[in-house]
Amino acid sequence: MSEYDRAITVFSPDGHLFQVEYAQEAVKKGSTAVGIRGKDIVVLGVEKKSVAKLQEERTVRKICALDDHVCMAFAGLTADARIVINRARVECQSHRLTVEDPVTVEYITRHIATLKQRYTQSNGRRPFGISALIVGFDCDGTPRLYQTDPSGTYHAWKANAIGRSAKTVREFLEKNYTEEAIATDNEAIKLAIKALLELLESKEIETLVTEIEKEKEEEVEKKKQKKST
Amino acid sequence: MSEYDRAITVFSPDGHLFQVEYAQEAVKKGSTAVGIRGKDIVVLGVEKKSVAKLQEERTVRKICALDDHVCMAFAGLTADARIVINRARVECQSHRLTVEDPVTVEYITRHIATLKQRYTQSNGRRPFGISALIVGFDCDGTPRLYQTDPSGTYHAWKANAIGRSAKTVREFLEKNYTEEAIATDNEAIKLAIKALLELLESKEIETLVTEIEKEKEEEVEKKKQKKST
Amino acid sequence: MSEYDRAITVFSPDGHLFQVEYAQEAVKKGSTAVGIRGKDIVVLGVEKKSVAKLQEERTVRKICALDDHVCMAFAGLTADARIVINRARVECQSHRLTVEDPVTVEYITRHIATLKQRYTQSNGRRPFGISALIVGFDCDGTPRLYQTDPSGTYHAWKANAIGRSAKTVREFLEKNYTEEAIATDNEAIKLAIKALLELLESKEIETLVTEIEKEKEEEVEKKKQKKST
Amino acid sequence: MSEYDRAITVFSPDGHLFQVEYAQEAVKKGSTAVGIRGKDIVVLGVEKKSVAKLQEERTVRKICALDDHVCMAFAGLTADARIVINRARVECQSHRLTVEDPVTVEYITRHIATLKQRYTQSNGRRPFGISALIVGFDCDGTPRLYQTDPSGTYHAWKANAIGRSAKTVREFLEKNYTEEAIATDNEAIKLAIKALLELLESKEIETLVTEIEKEKEEEVEKKKQKKST
Amino acid sequence: MSEYDRAITVFSPDGHLFQVEYAQEAVKKGSTAVGIRGKDIVVLGVEKKSVAKLQEERTVRKICALDDHVCMAFAGLTADARIVINRARVECQSHRLTVEDPVTVEYITRHIATLKQRYTQSNGRRPFGISALIVGFDCDGTPRLYQTDPSGTYHAWKANAIGRSAKTVREFLEKNYTEEAIATDNEAIKLAIKALLELLESKEIETLVTEIEKEKEEEVEKKKQKKST
Amino acid sequence: MSEYDRAITVFSPDGHLFQVEYAQEAVKKGSTAVGIRGKDIVVLGVEKKSVAKLQEERTVRKICALDDHVCMAFAGLTADARIVINRARVECQSHRLTVEDPVTVEYITRHIATLKQRYTQSNGRRPFGISALIVGFDCDGTPRLYQTDPSGTYHAWKANAIGRSAKTVREFLEKNYTEEAIATDNEAIKLAIKALLELLESKEIETLVTEIEKEKEEEVEKKKQKKST
Amino acid sequence: MSEYDRAITVFSPDGHLFQVEYAQEAVKKGSTAVGIRGKDIVVLGVEKKSVAKLQEERTVRKICALDDHVCMAFAGLTADARIVINRARVECQSHRLTVEDPVTVEYITRHIATLKQRYTQSNGRRPFGISALIVGFDCDGTPRLYQTDPSGTYHAWKANAIGRSAKTVREFLEKNYTEEAIATDNEAIKLAIKALLELLESKEIETLVTEIEKEKEEEVEKKKQKKST
Repeated sequence: MSEYDRAITVFSPDGHLFQVEYAQEAVKKGSTAVGIRGKDIVVLGVEKKSVAKLQEERTVRKICALDDHVCMAFAGLTADARIVINRARVECQSHRLTVEDPVTVEYITRHIATLKQRYTQSNGRRPFGISALIVGFDCDGTPRLYQTDPSGTYHAWKANAIGRSAKTVREFLEKNYTEEAIATDNEAIKLAIKALLELLESKEIETLVTEIEKEKEEEVEKKKQKKST
Repeated sequence: MSEYDRAITVFSPDGHLFQVEYAQEAVKKGSTAVGIRGKDIVVLGVEKKSVAKLQEERTVRKICALDDHVCMAFAGLTADARIVINRARVECQSHRLTVEDPVTVEYITRHIATLKQRYTQSNGRRPFGISALIVGFDCDGTPRLYQTDPSGTYHAWKANAIGRSAKTVREFLEKNYTEEAIATDNEAIKLAIKALLELLESKEIETLVTEIEKEKEEEVEKKKQKKST
Repeated sequence: MSEYDRAITVFSPDGHLFQVEYAQEAVKKGSTAVGIRGKDIVVLGVEKKSVAKLQEERTVRKICALDDHVCMAFAGLTADARIVINRARVECQSHRLTVEDPVTVEYITRHIATLKQRYTQSNGRRPFGISALIVGFDCDGTPRLYQTDPSGTYHAWKANAIGRSAKTVREFLEKNYTEEAIATDNEAIKLAIKALLELLESKEIETLVTEIEKEKEEEVEKKKQKKST
Repeated sequence: MSEYDRAITVFSPDGHLFQVEYAQEAVKKGSTAVGIRGKDIVVLGVEKKSVAKLQEERTVRKICALDDHVCMAFAGLTADARIVINRARVECQSHRLTVEDPVTVEYITRHIATLKQRYTQSNGRRPFGISALIVGFDCDGTPRLYQTDPSGTYHAWKANAIGRSAKTVREFLEKNYTEEAIATDNEAIKLAIKALLELLESKEIETLVTEIEKEKEEEVEKKKQKKST
Repeated sequence: MSEYDRAITVFSPDGHLFQVEYAQEAVKKGSTAVGIRGKDIVVLGVEKKSVAKLQEERTVRKICALDDHVCMAFAGLTADARIVINRARVECQSHRLTVEDPVTVEYITRHIATLKQRYTQSNGRRPFGISALIVGFDCDGTPRLYQTDPSGTYHAWKANAIGRSAKTVREFLEKNYTEEAIATDNEAIKLAIKALLELLESKEIETLVTEIEKEKEEEVEKKKQKKST
Repeated sequence: MSEYDRAITVFSPDGHLFQVEYAQEAVKKGSTAVGIRGKDIVVLGVEKKSVAKLQEERTVRKICALDDHVCMAFAGLTADARIVINRARVECQSHRLTVEDPVTVEYITRHIATLKQRYTQSNGRRPFGISALIVGFDCDGTPRLYQTDPSGTYHAWKANAIGRSAKTVREFLEKNYTEEAIATDNEAIKLAIKALLELLESKEIETLVTEIEKEKEEEVEKKKQKKST
Repeated sequence: MSEYDRAITVFSPDGHLFQVEYAQEAVKKGSTAVGIRGKDIVVLGVEKKSVAKLQEERTVRKICALDDHVCMAFAGLTADARIVINRARVECQSHRLTVEDPVTVEYITRHIATLKQRYTQSNGRRPFGISALIVGFDCDGTPRLYQTDPSGTYHAWKANAIGRSAKTVREFLEKNYTEEAIATDNEAIKLAIKALLELLESKEIETLVTEIEKEKEEEVEKKKQKKST
C-alpha cells in the first residue's frame, strides 16, 4: 500500500487516489463547521478549537469573507486554507474588474474546486488538505451553500457539516432541518448553534450570519456564544 | 506488481498499462449511466447516487451540456469529470468561433479521448478517472451516441452503459434494443428508464432526452422519475 | 526484473529494452491484421474484434487513411494508434504544402517509426503500444507495404501480419504467397481474406483494397465480408 | 512510515504531513523564545544557547529587526531563519516603496507564513525548519504578537513561547499573565525575564523591548541580563 | 546490483557504467559486420539476418550512406541506428553548407561518438544501443575505417568487426590481414567475404565496396553475394 | 535511515537534515584550520595535509584571498571550496563596482552562508561539503573572524577552529585565549602556531597573518613554519 | 550502501560522495600516465593499452594538445575525456580571442576542474570518469604540471602519475626524482620512460616531450619508443 502514494497522486489497484483520501483524513481531524441555508439567510457555525488561553481569537477564526457577499468556513490544514482563500479573493476581485459583476457563489466554488482538482493530478504536488463550506448570495438575493472537499468535487446543500464531527452533525441536521425549522431567520441561526453547542458540547463556537436584507457592507456580523454548561 | 504504477503510466510485463486499468476501477465504482440512440432522439439516463437528504440535486447531476446540441454523462471521479467537461466546452466555443460551425459529436468525442490518452503517456500525470457517454446531433440532425474510457479509446454505439452496473445494463440492452423498441421517441425513453429503474432498482434516476425536432435552445429537457416501488 | 522498467525505457543487463518488449505484448493482444502487396494493388485485412452487439462498426475500424494514397492498419492500443495516426496525417498535409508533392509511403513510415523510437529513449514517457501495417502507392504507382513496431523499426514486405495471430498468418502467407497467387487483383484480395477467414475462423473481417488504376479520390473502397460458416 | 517523506511533503495514511512534523521536531530542538504583549510594549526574550566561550554574541542573536517597527525571534534552523528574515526584510522595504506605508505586523506575518506554506506543497523542496515570534506596532501604535510554525499557520497571541521549553513556558505564562502582571511596562519585561531565567534556569538571556512611546529610530533597545546565582 | 541502472547511467561501485555495458549487450546480439581498409578501397560486409521470406531486402540493409563519400554499417538496435544515421546525414549536409567542404571521415565519426557519449551522461536518457563501422575517403583519397560503440569511444582500424561474432571475425582478420591479402582491391573484397561467408557460414551477406578511383557520384556500388552450397 | 537522504535534503523523523550532517562528516575529515582575532590583526593557520613529496605546495593551500582585505580558510572538499571561493570573489568585485565600497567581512560571510543554505533546500542538489573561517578587516580597520558550516549558519568568533581536530583546538583556545595572550601581534600569531604545531604535532603548517597597519596591497603576507622536532 | 548513489551524487552517512569515488575506480582501471616537469621541459608518458593488432595507433592516443602550449594526458573513460578535451580546447581559443593572450596552464586546469566539480553537484548527471595530467608553459616559459581528478580538485606537481599503476609509479618517482635526475632535458625524458618501461614492463609507451626553447609551433614533438626485450 505504501507504494502508491510516493511522488504524486496515483491510482491504487482498486481505483482509489490515496493522497486524496489521506488529505480527507486531515480534514476529519479539523474542527467541525456547520452551514445552514435559511429563507433569506445563510448561517455558518464553527466549533472553536479549545483556543490556548493567551491566544487572540481574532486570528483563529475559521470563517473568512471571500468577497462582500461570499464567506467560507473550512476544516483541515489552516495554512492550506489560507492559500485557497487568498486565491479565491483574488479571483473575486479580478471577476469584478473584468466582468463588472460580483461572482456568483457557484462560480467561486467551482473556481476553488478546480484549483483543488489540479493539485490531485499534477506532477509532484500534494492535494490541498481542506474541505470548505462556501456561502453567500447571488445577485437576486438567493442564499447559497456549497461544500467542497480535497478531491475537488463540490455540491450545493440546504445544510451540511464538515470536519471532526461532520457525520454526527449531518445526521442531526437531517432530522431537524425542516421548512418550519428555518421559517424565520432566528430559527435557522438557532438550529446551527444547537447543532454545535448541544450536540457536540463545544465549549465555544463562532457563528456568522449573513442576511441579504441588511446593507452589503454591514452584512457580516459576528456573534460569539459561550455555553453556560 | 506494485512496481509498475509508481511515477507514471508504464507497461507491465504482459503489456498492460496498470494506471489506466486502476482508473477503470474508479469508473466501475461510479454510478451507472445509460445512453440510447433512437430515431430522432438520444436518451441519457443516470442512476442517482443515494443523494444525502439535504443535498441540492442541482449540483449532483451527472449529465452536462457541452454545447447546445451535445451532452455528456459520466461515471467515475466527479472532479476529474468537471475538468474534462470544461475543456470540452471551451473547445466547442472555440470551434464555433474559428470554423463558424458547431462541432460534430464525433469531433468533440475525439477531442476528449485525445486529452485522456495524453494523460496516459505524459510524465508524472495520472490518467483521468472517468468514462463518458457523449450524445448529440450532427448538422443534419442525425443522433449520435459515443462512449469513451480512461485509456482514451472511443466508439459509437446504438445503446450502451457505463459505471457500476454497466455490464448488467448492457446485457439488458442487447436483449431489448430492437428497431421496434425505439420506434417512437417515447419507447426509447421508456427503455432507458426501464434499464435503470426496473433492472437496477435504482430509487431515483435523472434522465435527459434530447430531441431534434424541438427548438435548439429548448432541446434540453429534464424529467425526474421517482420509483414508487 | 521489476527494477528495469520503472521510470523510463532503460536497458536490462542482457541488453533488452523492457518497456519496448512489454509494449510488444500489448500488440500481441491486438486483433490480427494482414497486408498483401499485389501487382497494382495493396490489400489490408483486419480480423474484427467480436464487436459488442450494439456497437456501431463505423468507429471500431482498425484501418485508417493517412492521405489519399496511404492507409494504415494497426494492432495494439487503440488510443495510442489514434495519436500516431493524427500526427501522420498532419505530416502528410504539411508535406504537401511545403514540398508540393504527396509523401512517399516510405517517407511517412519513417516519420511514424522515428516518432515511436523517440518515445523509447526520452525521459519519462512510455513507448507507443502499437504495431502498424502501412500501405500505399508511390508517385509512379508502385504499391508498397511497410510494417513498424513499438521499438521504432520498420521494414518493407511483400506480405505480412501483425497482432494476435501474426505468427500463424505469416507462416500461411509464406507458404501461399507466390507470383501466381497474386497474379490478378482478385487473387490477391482472396489470399488476404483466406488468411483471416479460413485460417483464423474470424467471424467478421474488414478489408481495404487499394488499387492504383482507379481515380486517386475514389481509390479507397471498402468491402466487408461476413463469413457464412 | 519511511515511505511518506521521500521526495516531497506528502500525506500519510492518517492525514499527516510528515516532513512538516519532522520540521517541527527541529523547532523543538531550538532555544526557547518568549513573547509578551504589554499595554504599549512588546517584549521578546530568548534563552541563549550556551554560547561557546570564544564566540561573539553579536552573531548568535536569535532576535532580528524586520523593519523599524517589526522584530522577530525564531527557534529552529538558524540558516533557514536567515533566508526567511531576508525575504521578510525585502518585502517590508518593497511595501514601503509601493504602498508608501510601513507593513502592519499581521501583513508581514502572513507574508512569512505563506512563504512557509509554499515550501510544504511544492515539488522537491523541504519545509522551513523554524517557528517565529513576530512582534511590532501597527500604525496606530497597537502592539502585536504573532507566532508562526513550519506548516505555515500563524496566530495572534497575548503571550507565547516557541522552541525547546515552549510548553513549560506557555503554561507558566497562562498562570501568570494577567492584566496586572503587564500593567506597567516594567512588569511586562519582568514577566518575560522571569519565564526564561527562573523557570528554565537559563544562564543567559537576550531580551528585546519594543516601546511605542519612544522615537521610531531609537525604539529598539536591548538589554542583556546575567543571572546572578 | 539492480540498483545502479535505474533512472540514468551512473557509476557502479567498481567504476562501471552499467547502462552502457547493457547497451553493449544489445550490440552483441546484432548481426555481424566487417570492415576492411584496402589500398584505395574500403569494404564493408554485413551478415544478413535470416530475412523473413516475404520481407523486402531493400529495407533490412544494415549499410547506409551518410554522404557521397562516407558509409556506415551498424550492429544493435535498428531504430536507434536510424536516429544516429539521420543526425549524421544532417551534419554532413550542414558541414558542406557552412564549411563548403565535405566532412572528413574522422570528423563525422567524432560527431557520432560525441552524440553517443552525451546519452551516457545526460539525465533520464538511455545510451544508444548500437556500434558502428564508419568508412569513407578523405579529400586526398585516403580510405578510412572507424569503429564506435555505445559508450562514445571511437578508434581507427585497418580491419575490424562488430556484432554477434565480432570476436571470431576479428581473430580471423588478425591472422589473415596482411599487406599481400589486400594488395589488390579484389583481394580485400575477398577477405571480407571470406570472413563472413566461410567463417560464420552466413547464408547471405550484404557487401559494400567503396573505391576511390571511380567518380565520386558513382562511388557507392553494391554487390550482393549468395552463398551457393 | 537510508531512506531519508535519497534525492534531496529532507527532514528525518527527529528533525535532522541528514545530507547536511553527512556533509559535516566530510568537513570533519578535512585538515584542521585555526583562526585567531588579535587587536589589529587576524591570524589564520592551517595544518598541512601530509603533502605528497612531489606535490607543489602552491596549489595545496587551504587559505585563499577573497578580496584585498578578506581571506578564507576551509576544511572539507577542496573542489567544493573552489566553487564557493570563486562565487565569493565575483561578489566582492561586483560589490565594489555597484556600491563603490569593498564588502564588509560579515557581508561576504552572509553571502557565502546563504549560498550554502540554498543548496540544503533546493531540489536535487547536495549541500556544499565545506566549513570556512573567513577573516578580514572592516573599513574602520576592525579585524573580524567568522565561521560558517555546510548548513549555512555563520557566527563571529574571537578564535575558532574547523576540520579534523577542531574540538581539541577549540578547547585549547578556550583555555589559552586571553587578553594578554593576544596583547601583541606576535603573541596572537604564536598562539595560532602553538595550537597547530604543539597541540596536534602537525609536521607542517601554513599561516596567514593579516595586519591592518600595513598597506592594503601588502597586507597579505605569508609565513611558513617548519617544526623542528 | 546501494541507496546513496541512485539518482545523483549525494553524501553517504560518513561524508563520502559515492558516485565520485566510483568514478575514481574507473580511473584506476585506465592506462597509467606519468608526467615529469624538468627545467625547461615537461614530459608526458602513457602506457599503451595492448592495442589490438589491426587498430590504428593514431586514434588510441591518450595525449592530446589543448592549445599550442598546453597538453593533456588522461586515464579513465575515453569518451568522457573527449568531451572534456573539446570543452577545454574551445575555452583556450575563446580565451585567446577575448583576452588576446594564451591561457596559463593553471587557468585551463582550473577550468577543467570546475567543469568536473559541477558534474558532482548538479541534479541527475554523473561525474566525469577521468583523471588528467595537464602540462604546458606559461608566458614566461615556466613549465607546469597539474593533475586533476573526478571530484574536481587539482594540484601542481613536480612529477606524478595517474591510472592503473599510479601508486607504484608515484613511489618510484618519489625515490628517483631529484634535481640531478632532471638536470638535463634528456635525463627528465629518460626518467619518464624508465618509470613506464622498466617499472611496469609496459610493452609500448607513448611519450610527449614539450620543450620551451623550440619554436611555439614546433614545440609539440612526439617520440614513440618500443621496448626491445
